[in-house]
Amino acid sequence: MITKTYFINFAGRTNNKTKSFMKKIRAAIVGYGNIGKSVLEALQSSPDFEVAGVVRRASSIGNSPLELTGISIVDDIKKLQGVDVAILCSPTRSVPAQAKEILALGIHTVDSYDIHSTIWELRQELAPVAQANKAVAIISAGWDPGSDSVVRALLEAIAPKGITYTNFGPGMSMGHTVAVKAVPGVKKALSMTIPLGTSIHRRMVYIELEDGYNFEEVAQNIKNDAYFVKDETHVMQVDDVNNLIDMGHGVNLVRKGVSGTTYNQLFEFNMKINNPALTAQILVACARAATKTNPGAYTMIEIPMIDMLYGEKEDLIRRLV
Amino acid sequence: MITKTYFINFAGRTNNKTKSFMKKIRAAIVGYGNIGKSVLEALQSSPDFEVAGVVRRASSIGNSPLELTGISIVDDIKKLQGVDVAILCSPTRSVPAQAKEILALGIHTVDSYDIHSTIWELRQELAPVAQANKAVAIISAGWDPGSDSVVRALLEAIAPKGITYTNFGPGMSMGHTVAVKAVPGVKKALSMTIPLGTSIHRRMVYIELEDGYNFEEVAQNIKNDAYFVKDETHVMQVDDVNNLIDMGHGVNLVRKGVSGTTYNQLFEFNMKINNPALTAQILVACARAATKTNPGAYTMIEIPMIDMLYGEKEDLIRRLV
Repeated sequence: MITKTYFINFAGRTNNKTKSFMKKIRAAIVGYGNIGKSVLEALQSSPDFEVAGVVRRASSIGNSPLELTGISIVDDIKKLQGVDVAILCSPTRSVPAQAKEILALGIHTVDSYDIHSTIWELRQELAPVAQANKAVAIISAGWDPGSDSVVRALLEAIAPKGITYTNFGPGMSMGHTVAVKAVPGVKKALSMTIPLGTSIHRRMVYIELEDGYNFEEVAQNIKNDAYFVKDETHVMQVDDVNNLIDMGHGVNLVRKGVSGTTYNQLFEFNMKINNPALTAQILVACARAATKTNPGAYTMIEIPMIDMLYGEKEDLIRRLV
Repeated sequence: MITKTYFINFAGRTNNKTKSFMKKIRAAIVGYGNIGKSVLEALQSSPDFEVAGVVRRASSIGNSPLELTGISIVDDIKKLQGVDVAILCSPTRSVPAQAKEILALGIHTVDSYDIHSTIWELRQELAPVAQANKAVAIISAGWDPGSDSVVRALLEAIAPKGITYTNFGPGMSMGHTVAVKAVPGVKKALSMTIPLGTSIHRRMVYIELEDGYNFEEVAQNIKNDAYFVKDETHVMQVDDVNNLIDMGHGVNLVRKGVSGTTYNQLFEFNMKINNPALTAQILVACARAATKTNPGAYTMIEIPMIDMLYGEKEDLIRRLV
């Protein structure tokens, strides 16, 4: 009895009536790095999902880690049965092509595409493919872009004039680290984001260098990358990047704005989180929302919050509103 | 040029292309107290709205304040022309009847109904009326319930297990103050909300007593009211309530939760705001959303954030996502 009360009041997760009638959502994990591993954990923790399988490069399939035991691992999503939604966990730059291929199969996609300047273009590129194949793409579904975007949109709705500052870190940026790793000559990398206030950030990049490359040239190529070109960036060569890695991250998002004609409305959103775990959970929440949405491509500010949640509408509204 | 850049980058408000093609949303303000006055300010600050008129009790129409000069003031919304949406600014307990009457005219309604325990019932009561008359009701569109509900829903989506605490104040509670004023024997009232942490609050109620009433009896009736019965409540008699009133308020909303299998994900949302100004701005944002939504009754967690915002979809997504 205590257990039941606990679940109903605090998480709303055990509801036998719901469970017995509910067809689970079959999700494929596409790409199995840090995010893919965390998505697996989030799917296995979600009562309304089941794992359809994991899509990896053919060369990786042989040496898959222990936690994938018993899970279908394939090199092509077409080899998996009855996939409702594909959760894209591969590097951000492969998202556009991958999403289009999978949407063309009539399978929903969610991704955490994080190049802010081209999110609109990705949405416009995926929308016709999604619509033509009666599928849903929810794009840029991480924490920034993603849940932070929802907070920024909410704060602009409730205090329309003013400035929002999003301050990241200190923490490891997954997207920036992947971008550094793609630069020729980089063996291992870590990109740390340091908040300087008013949305200004310093990038501290730690790399191990491949033999035969010149550090200064590699460092300059990193600084010229689209991910870094606008920010103060320092590149340092180290012996062992692994010793520096901590996946904790944070945000401090502040807005001072005007509601109607009333100035000095003050808002602040803070979080201190494990980065891949949060990104993965948001991907899974948006995978759920994809199954409730009309065909098309959407960002998170175009999706009602309730669609991201597990549970009965009545229970959710009673508990959360 | 500087002005133009300022507007486009920071608030997205001046866009002549949009303006010239846009039919403004005609909003009626129903009830003209603190919230009604702030709604007028918010509507007049919103480029996509125009004020259709103000609905007041017949007895109040004669002595309307200066800021209503030139605005139609009527005792029945039917006397106003071409109303798209009615913004209900009357006491929360009159919302259900008023909303049904207005929805039956095919006019959208928004309200800030704030009795948490019966929000679902209100939604279910309004939904069929709204649907039958091709209208939209957005209910409980204040800051709590309202924008805080959106934050709670977002945080549960991104860290599904865990506990959210919503701590209010210190500040004046509008709903509680109105509830106190409705108790016989109360001439003037102020109800202050004091946060005690972990969602526990003290209510500090200051009243001026009507002649011929017994303070202890009135105090007991206040404590027995549905608004107060669950909280530690202190009622004090004062000579002049007006000297105590400051419409500033605040929230500290915290969640410690689990994303996937990762514990200790930490989130916090804080605001320090002018209460009626914020409520009014949220009502106006939801009035805008009502014009973009399919017929029915909704809470704010059922509405995409983008629908609450003024501006072109492309510009909003580029700036906010």
